[in-house]
Amino acid sequence: MSQTLAEIAAALGARLEGDGALRIAGASEPAMAGPEDLALAMDPKYASGLSKGRARAAVLWEGADWGALGLEGAIFVPRPRYAMAGITRALDPGPEIAPGIHPLAVIDPTAEIGEGAAIGPFVTVGRGVRIGARARIAPRVSIEAETVIGADALILPGVWIGPRVTIGDRFICHPNAVIGSDGFSFVTPEKSGAEEIRETLGHRAEIRAQSWTRIHSIGTVEIGDDVEIGATATIDRGTIRATSIGSGTKLDNQVHLGHNVVVGRDCLICGQSGIAGSARVGDRVVLGGQVGVSDNIFVGDDVIAGAGTKIMSNAPKGRVLLGYPAIKMDTQIANWKHIRRLGRMSEQLAELRKTVAESGQSGIAIEDERGSDDDAS
Amino acid sequence: MSQTLAEIAAALGARLEGDGALRIAGASEPAMAGPEDLALAMDPKYASGLSKGRARAAVLWEGADWGALGLEGAIFVPRPRYAMAGITRALDPGPEIAPGIHPLAVIDPTAEIGEGAAIGPFVTVGRGVRIGARARIAPRVSIEAETVIGADALILPGVWIGPRVTIGDRFICHPNAVIGSDGFSFVTPEKSGAEEIRETLGHRAEIRAQSWTRIHSIGTVEIGDDVEIGATATIDRGTIRATSIGSGTKLDNQVHLGHNVVVGRDCLICGQSGIAGSARVGDRVVLGGQVGVSDNIFVGDDVIAGAGTKIMSNAPKGRVLLGYPAIKMDTQIANWKHIRRLGRMSEQLAELRKTVAESGQSGIAIEDERGSDDDAS
Amino acid sequence: MSQTLAEIAAALGARLEGDGALRIAGASEPAMAGPEDLALAMDPKYASGLSKGRARAAVLWEGADWGALGLEGAIFVPRPRYAMAGITRALDPGPEIAPGIHPLAVIDPTAEIGEGAAIGPFVTVGRGVRIGARARIAPRVSIEAETVIGADALILPGVWIGPRVTIGDRFICHPNAVIGSDGFSFVTPEKSGAEEIRETLGHRAEIRAQSWTRIHSIGTVEIGDDVEIGATATIDRGTIRATSIGSGTKLDNQVHLGHNVVVGRDCLICGQSGIAGSARVGDRVVLGGQVGVSDNIFVGDDVIAGAGTKIMSNAPKGRVLLGYPAIKMDTQIANWKHIRRLGRMSEQLAELRKTVAESGQSGIAIEDERGSDDDAS
Repeated sequence: MSQTLAEIAAALGARLEGDGALRIAGASEPAMAGPEDLALAMDPKYASGLSKGRARAAVLWEGADWGALGLEGAIFVPRPRYAMAGITRALDPGPEIAPGIHPLAVIDPTAEIGEGAAIGPFVTVGRGVRIGARARIAPRVSIEAETVIGADALILPGVWIGPRVTIGDRFICHPNAVIGSDGFSFVTPEKSGAEEIRETLGHRAEIRAQSWTRIHSIGTVEIGDDVEIGATATIDRGTIRATSIGSGTKLDNQVHLGHNVVVGRDCLICGQSGIAGSARVGDRVVLGGQVGVSDNIFVGDDVIAGAGTKIMSNAPKGRVLLGYPAIKMDTQIANWKHIRRLGRMSEQLAELRKTVAESGQSGIAIEDERGSDDDAS
Repeated sequence: MSQTLAEIAAALGARLEGDGALRIAGASEPAMAGPEDLALAMDPKYASGLSKGRARAAVLWEGADWGALGLEGAIFVPRPRYAMAGITRALDPGPEIAPGIHPLAVIDPTAEIGEGAAIGPFVTVGRGVRIGARARIAPRVSIEAETVIGADALILPGVWIGPRVTIGDRFICHPNAVIGSDGFSFVTPEKSGAEEIRETLGHRAEIRAQSWTRIHSIGTVEIGDDVEIGATATIDRGTIRATSIGSGTKLDNQVHLGHNVVVGRDCLICGQSGIAGSARVGDRVVLGGQVGVSDNIFVGDDVIAGAGTKIMSNAPKGRVLLGYPAIKMDTQIANWKHIRRLGRMSEQLAELRKTVAESGQSGIAIEDERGSDDDAS
Repeated sequence: MSQTLAEIAAALGARLEGDGALRIAGASEPAMAGPEDLALAMDPKYASGLSKGRARAAVLWEGADWGALGLEGAIFVPRPRYAMAGITRALDPGPEIAPGIHPLAVIDPTAEIGEGAAIGPFVTVGRGVRIGARARIAPRVSIEAETVIGADALILPGVWIGPRVTIGDRFICHPNAVIGSDGFSFVTPEKSGAEEIRETLGHRAEIRAQSWTRIHSIGTVEIGDDVEIGATATIDRGTIRATSIGSGTKLDNQVHLGHNVVVGRDCLICGQSGIAGSARVGDRVVLGGQVGVSDNIFVGDDVIAGAGTKIMSNAPKGRVLLGYPAIKMDTQIANWKHIRRLGRMSEQLAELRKTVAESGQSGIAIEDERGSDDDAS
């Protein structure tokens, strides 16, 4: 993977100063850099780190004096965080999957595998599957009947992709993800307690025994181009239509999408978030870690939700949300501050009641308050 | 999978009108239906969708005029949601697993495989395992020594079932689930900080270095009949007894059950919920998505908990819960409403204190409130 | 696995009374014990259970009269919970993985496998991998290029360990865990809405279309000695340095660690907890189930966080935390109590305002309060 500093600068569209012929084998934080590492020092605070490490080349902040920092060459980039994309792409060796189809893969004879594809051992590919050109399918992946995957896919070990799924180009899927599992959809012959609760917000006329009959998932999953799915993420197929993920959307590890969920384009869904059945999420939505979206609701375009937020009702487009239940982020932060002051508020209120009662005004009696914990579970 | 409309009506116990000989290959939402799809239009709001799609047959709401809707046949069902179970079951092609045992499966010679079972490639079956009749074991499943599984099991790729597990009939297990992993159980030679906290609700006499010794899990997992386990769900084995799941209970994707947990019959545990070690959950309990149940507590029969609820103490039977910490759902909704009004309450209280102070009554002084944020982390 | 009672007593350093030659094949709760089970009855409350079961030997509470309890032998231990570690270790048969390398494993010829290692079928081991002595690698594990694993590892089915990972001795990894997946790190050419929100706590100047460019993860994962990783847990590799887990730390099932995370020594991270990218966690930290740690923050040594806690800002060492957002546990419990009393506080405040208004003091007007729900999502 070794490249010259000049090649990297060219790939990034960055300005090069000093020795462009320096060989670069990796990237590193400044203090830990070896002589073939490109030190990433986009901020003056890293200057001292450079003197601890052994880097000969670095990415530097605008205006830095690379000679004085003991370097032999340097490159300069306008938006450092964005430059990271190019630097790491240039230096990523990628997974090692031997070209061709491994003899211990089990490929259905009706499957069509694109030109230049690499398929590892212990892979199964079902009837009528079509996989695009240059796909890299790592060991221990299963792709079920009639599924279609575009060009340049990278699918890592342990992934399962169910039947009749369609996926666009440049798909990346991390280990042990599951795409196209059956939805979690069960029904009782009579209306169930959970159905009743939803209508009454907590009241039940009577509790009946009930057992669950399975609604099968005969829909599928449709995934656009440039989608990335995290490790052990799970995406259920639709009941009779498709669960759908728009182009450019990225799902982190352990994300769960229920049946019939529709997620728009260019969304980021962070780790351990879950979207319940039949919810619809717009374009460019960003959900932080451990967010939940209730079933059958709508989350508008450009919504951003902070970590741990539970979105339990429709969210208009552009809304910034936080908390359980989700409300506007600034309101939530204000509410949390009020809650931290509740002890004092409670004391002040008690004091005020006492003052007013003692002043002889009517209607205030100071009773015992211990009964009010009774509603805890 | 093509069937006639009359066959489907008979399977559902539904009333048929029109041409029962129409061939049905799938089901669809009305607007997206092709000529061999059964359009699902159980409500008058779908009438316009029918005119957009190309369905010749539909499931209709009671009283609909199928001829006027441009259909050639229709069926009528009393409870549409329940009818979905029958319709989707009739039209689900199911997974394609070739009959017999694949030559690339590694089956211990002492294992007993039931009549009519299908076992895919890259499966391992351990010493003394017994698997019932007509089991369908997909590729890349591992079943460890002495485990016993009933008739008609469907086990999908990547599943691991540990040793000495017992599972009833009609078991369905989705991809990459893990059943019978070791419990998360560690102990320190002296009482640990975490043990102390539990007793004192947050106070520690002194902080000591501590390292963890493993308590091995030599118990097992016992699963009843008609149980379904979601993709990447994890179920730990018991320490010395069995983790247990009652008949008819369904676990969604990414659910976690700790060691020694007992879950009753006919429960629904939705996605990403977790039940900590040694908790006991009654029959017909419904937990929404991302619910947590603390260790060693009891959740009574017929409890229903809304999404995101954290049940941290015993819950009596029939209780409907919501929130963190869990309290009765209607109380929680009222509390959330009060919290949204805290800003106004705080202003009113300040105004009232000022009024009363100015009126010359005793004991009220308006101090600076900024100190009260100190207890944030 | 049958041993004598005397052998078990010696392994535990426990006091033996009665017949040390009794053969013990397992351990059990007293009431369910068979004649070859060691009944675990460390507390007098189990006395009645002993009479229901058929145990001939038991672990008893100090001072118990084993003869009167119908036993033929007994052992006595000082700290019963700690003794469980030794008892279960002595009686755990462990997984059955045949010695040597299975012919259906695909091992790169440059890999070095330690003496006495056992490797199951359908395993892949990449270029330059080094695995220590006596490793037990179960079926369907993949270990990628240049990864190094110490002695006495136990790696269970379905695990994926990415390239260039380093792991110490006595590593235990449960089924379907993923170690070394790519970080979830994306960037937009211009500052994204999520970046802006962080700076403004919720305000956005304008909403722009944006799509995501991938920052590749060219760092690795470094894991110390005596680490245990739960089933379907996921650990992302670092961007340019290593995600790191200190010696003695244990991760439960479905835990997620983001890229660049550093977790110290002897920590316990319970089920379904997640630590977001670049967060640093000290030594001996205990996180309960479903805890979240925000990205780029610091959690000090000896912090303990209760189940469901979301740690959103730096936590000083020794802090005991609870809630969303995390605050000190005792303060949180007090706040939750105040919240349960908000209904009454609200009534009292309204009543007081009315009283004061009627007494003719200035400035109080009782307006309609219905407008205050407007900020809900």
